[in-house]
Amino acid sequence: LNLSEVAAVVSGRVLDGDGVEIRGVSDISGAGEGDLTFAMTEGHARAAAATPAAAVLVPEGVSVPGKPVVVVRNPKYAFVKILGMLGPREPEERGVHPAAFVAEGAAVGTDAFVGPGAVLESGARIGPGARILAGACVGRDVSVGEGATVGRNAVLYPDTVLGARSVVHAGAVLGADGFGYLQEGKDPGEAAADASRRYLQVEGPHLKVPHYGRLEVGEDVEIGAGTTIDRSTTGSTFIGDGTKIDNLVQIGHNCRIGRHVIIVSMVGIGGSVTVGDHVTIGGNCGISESVVLGDFCIVGAHTLAYPGRRFAPHTVVWGNPARPAKKFRAQLAAISSLPRIVQKVKDLEGRLRALEGGATREEGGRGA
Amino acid sequence: LNLSEVAAVVSGRVLDGDGVEIRGVSDISGAGEGDLTFAMTEGHARAAAATPAAAVLVPEGVSVPGKPVVVVRNPKYAFVKILGMLGPREPEERGVHPAAFVAEGAAVGTDAFVGPGAVLESGARIGPGARILAGACVGRDVSVGEGATVGRNAVLYPDTVLGARSVVHAGAVLGADGFGYLQEGKDPGEAAADASRRYLQVEGPHLKVPHYGRLEVGEDVEIGAGTTIDRSTTGSTFIGDGTKIDNLVQIGHNCRIGRHVIIVSMVGIGGSVTVGDHVTIGGNCGISESVVLGDFCIVGAHTLAYPGRRFAPHTVVWGNPARPAKKFRAQLAAISSLPRIVQKVKDLEGRLRALEGGATREEGGRGA
Amino acid sequence: LNLSEVAAVVSGRVLDGDGVEIRGVSDISGAGEGDLTFAMTEGHARAAAATPAAAVLVPEGVSVPGKPVVVVRNPKYAFVKILGMLGPREPEERGVHPAAFVAEGAAVGTDAFVGPGAVLESGARIGPGARILAGACVGRDVSVGEGATVGRNAVLYPDTVLGARSVVHAGAVLGADGFGYLQEGKDPGEAAADASRRYLQVEGPHLKVPHYGRLEVGEDVEIGAGTTIDRSTTGSTFIGDGTKIDNLVQIGHNCRIGRHVIIVSMVGIGGSVTVGDHVTIGGNCGISESVVLGDFCIVGAHTLAYPGRRFAPHTVVWGNPARPAKKFRAQLAAISSLPRIVQKVKDLEGRLRALEGGATREEGGRGA
Repeated sequence: LNLSEVAAVVSGRVLDGDGVEIRGVSDISGAGEGDLTFAMTEGHARAAAATPAAAVLVPEGVSVPGKPVVVVRNPKYAFVKILGMLGPREPEERGVHPAAFVAEGAAVGTDAFVGPGAVLESGARIGPGARILAGACVGRDVSVGEGATVGRNAVLYPDTVLGARSVVHAGAVLGADGFGYLQEGKDPGEAAADASRRYLQVEGPHLKVPHYGRLEVGEDVEIGAGTTIDRSTTGSTFIGDGTKIDNLVQIGHNCRIGRHVIIVSMVGIGGSVTVGDHVTIGGNCGISESVVLGDFCIVGAHTLAYPGRRFAPHTVVWGNPARPAKKFRAQLAAISSLPRIVQKVKDLEGRLRALEGGATREEGGRGA
Repeated sequence: LNLSEVAAVVSGRVLDGDGVEIRGVSDISGAGEGDLTFAMTEGHARAAAATPAAAVLVPEGVSVPGKPVVVVRNPKYAFVKILGMLGPREPEERGVHPAAFVAEGAAVGTDAFVGPGAVLESGARIGPGARILAGACVGRDVSVGEGATVGRNAVLYPDTVLGARSVVHAGAVLGADGFGYLQEGKDPGEAAADASRRYLQVEGPHLKVPHYGRLEVGEDVEIGAGTTIDRSTTGSTFIGDGTKIDNLVQIGHNCRIGRHVIIVSMVGIGGSVTVGDHVTIGGNCGISESVVLGDFCIVGAHTLAYPGRRFAPHTVVWGNPARPAKKFRAQLAAISSLPRIVQKVKDLEGRLRALEGGATREEGGRGA
Repeated sequence: LNLSEVAAVVSGRVLDGDGVEIRGVSDISGAGEGDLTFAMTEGHARAAAATPAAAVLVPEGVSVPGKPVVVVRNPKYAFVKILGMLGPREPEERGVHPAAFVAEGAAVGTDAFVGPGAVLESGARIGPGARILAGACVGRDVSVGEGATVGRNAVLYPDTVLGARSVVHAGAVLGADGFGYLQEGKDPGEAAADASRRYLQVEGPHLKVPHYGRLEVGEDVEIGAGTTIDRSTTGSTFIGDGTKIDNLVQIGHNCRIGRHVIIVSMVGIGGSVTVGDHVTIGGNCGISESVVLGDFCIVGAHTLAYPGRRFAPHTVVWGNPARPAKKFRAQLAAISSLPRIVQKVKDLEGRLRALEGGATREEGGRGA
């Protein structure tokens, strides 16, 4: 890779050094000869100048004395892009391993890989170049898109759709039944009319709501290890293109998760939740059923959004109950000041008593 | 299915139309010719009347002009029951797949299914009609009841008992060791006597408490994808009949979970917890060791119940620390009003100072 | 086992009975003839005296009339140690099961076991006496230490290192990619300079930060069922010797977890967190990226530690936001008293109004 090629990849502009060859990439602290590194600030640039690096990615307005630079919008972003291109690759295994189990009626695309112990049930369709790693189970009539990866021991329930280039990490489970039950003694009509009925405590067994729907995962999605996403009652649960989901996240039936969403670990999302595009959800949150999060919402860690709450686009949401973060922070501050407030109220009481006493004495004095 | 047969299944009463044939089921919005639909209210009934539906499930007192109806206690419940009967079925696979691994001494009942890549260790007993799906591991001496299902890549540790018709979803792990350790420098006797000793911070390695017990899961239980339930130290961890557990739930060693309990996703239940019958536990809760939840308790989402706390039957429990929901809500309201209180205290202080100043001036005036 | 041998194992001192034979172990309530039991207090000792137990483990200063005793520092700890020695053993399976898949270039040590359906990828090295149970996947170039156990259907990503005698429970996933993404429109340099930039909401796809590092797990570590621990971006994520991790825990990329740490279920630990030795983390906690917990810290259940917060050794940490537990408890107490405070402020206001009115009337009187 020479610098012009680097610049083309990262939409940058080379200053002094189009032909310079890049042999590797490294951050400043480890930069050696032939390496491409990056600087966000003038300080970084000075540090980069002192290394044997061959060239430096810089933002507009920053230069590195004595080194060719590539000017880009976001040097760290550009650096990671090149890192991804030059880094070590997983070995390019192809074909169906003799120890895989491919049912009749399953189809494996060109250059796809099916590892040892992996199972393709009947009607499963594996796209060109897709990789089904060891021990993964791909259920009946599942569709795995071109270049997608299903990790070791991951499970795709029947009818699941996984988009092109999406990655499912080890042990994740896609398309299991949603968690829906009814009790005969609970009347959902009345329950809707009277929120307190939610606390209706009834006897009798739970009747399972059957789940005839499926799960559709878009393109370029990444789903973390151990994460579970349920199929829909009817129709589909949707995960939008480009969305990234951490390990050990639960997403319920009938959810519609938007595009380019970020969901951090240990989040539980209830049924029928709508999450807009570009939303970020911090760790350990509970998003109850039927919540709506508008585009670009950000949900702070450990938040609990109550059933049916709606948040407008661009809201920063936090706390239990979830509300605009400004309010939550004001409340946290007020709580922190509580011990002082308690003391102040005690003081006021004392001073008031003194005044009252004074008044009384005064009155007494008058009476005298 | 004709309407009389439907009525028999849902304990209903047909009005005008015993012989009407039902060809499918659908909610009102999608109801076509020959479909059975349901109405909870007069409004729904009018909407149902305008569809080509063949018949309508209604509660007592609601009628649908021009359509035969079946009067039932809870139309939605009855609808889901019929839906479950008429919906698509998983294919009825039977027998041991040639790519399954069945150890000597394992026994597979009549009409049971063992999928490709599934492992039955020695002494495992699979009941009649039970299904062990692809990649599932059934450990030594495990007993799987009649008609039960063990999902893809799920794991049952040795000695686990799974009751009839219970369903374990993909990737769930039943019967792993409990999380119990001792340190030599911690004296559990003194710790019991003095709660502050809990914070004793000692050096030295942790000694594992061996877990020679097992896990017994009752009948008609459903256990979600990725959920983990630990075996007991000695004796058994119990999950009662009819209990439904969502995805990614953790239940500790020596717990006794009652019958018809609902546990939502991301709940962690510590060791030796007792949960009564018909309890509901919301998402992301922590139920610490040795807590007791009486029958019909409801635990709000994100609640943390401290070790050893006991809640009487029918308590609605909420918050951190967990307490009756009424108190938690009062507290939430008080917290919401805190900024106003802070302002009010400031005002009071100002007014008091004015009075005090007045008093002073007055006194001064007097002095003059 | 005779009492002298018991005493040697638990570093104890026999009083009256070196040659007594121990046939089993049991707590006091179940102690039969030939059993070893334990007593923490004088009360326990009297109860033990009434059983047919052969001998009793006691602390310094406690004796059991008529029975030989072994005096130890912590009788319960000693009891569990002997219990672990005398308890039932998993069968000692050895060798590679014919239904396992061992790639060329994988190496299996003496007396190791590889179960049915297990997969060893190329370059995997299994230490002497190690056990890879049914369906487990051991990725390329993974190293499994002497006597270690990889549970059923667990997954070790390529390059992972698992130390000697460590145990990975079923369904756990070690060494998956960390959860790291960049957006071109977010400038991490400015973000660092201005914390409010964290809430920058930008369009555009997320670029995956590649993870070329690995995960190194020390010796005598136990990792619970369904737990996930990510590899490092570069270098290694570390889990120290003797650390015990419960089921369904998430540990992010680049973390350094110390030795003899305890992490309870449903904890999510973000990227680049440093946890000292002997730390205890309660259930359902969120430990955000770059937090530092000093040695011997204890983190209460449901705590949320904000990004970058540092806690000195021996701190008891609690709440949201995480802070010294003393403060959190004071705050909880203050919150509990809030409704009373609100009432008191109302009272003060009334009394103040009365005084003010009095003053006014008084003034009025004067004016008259």
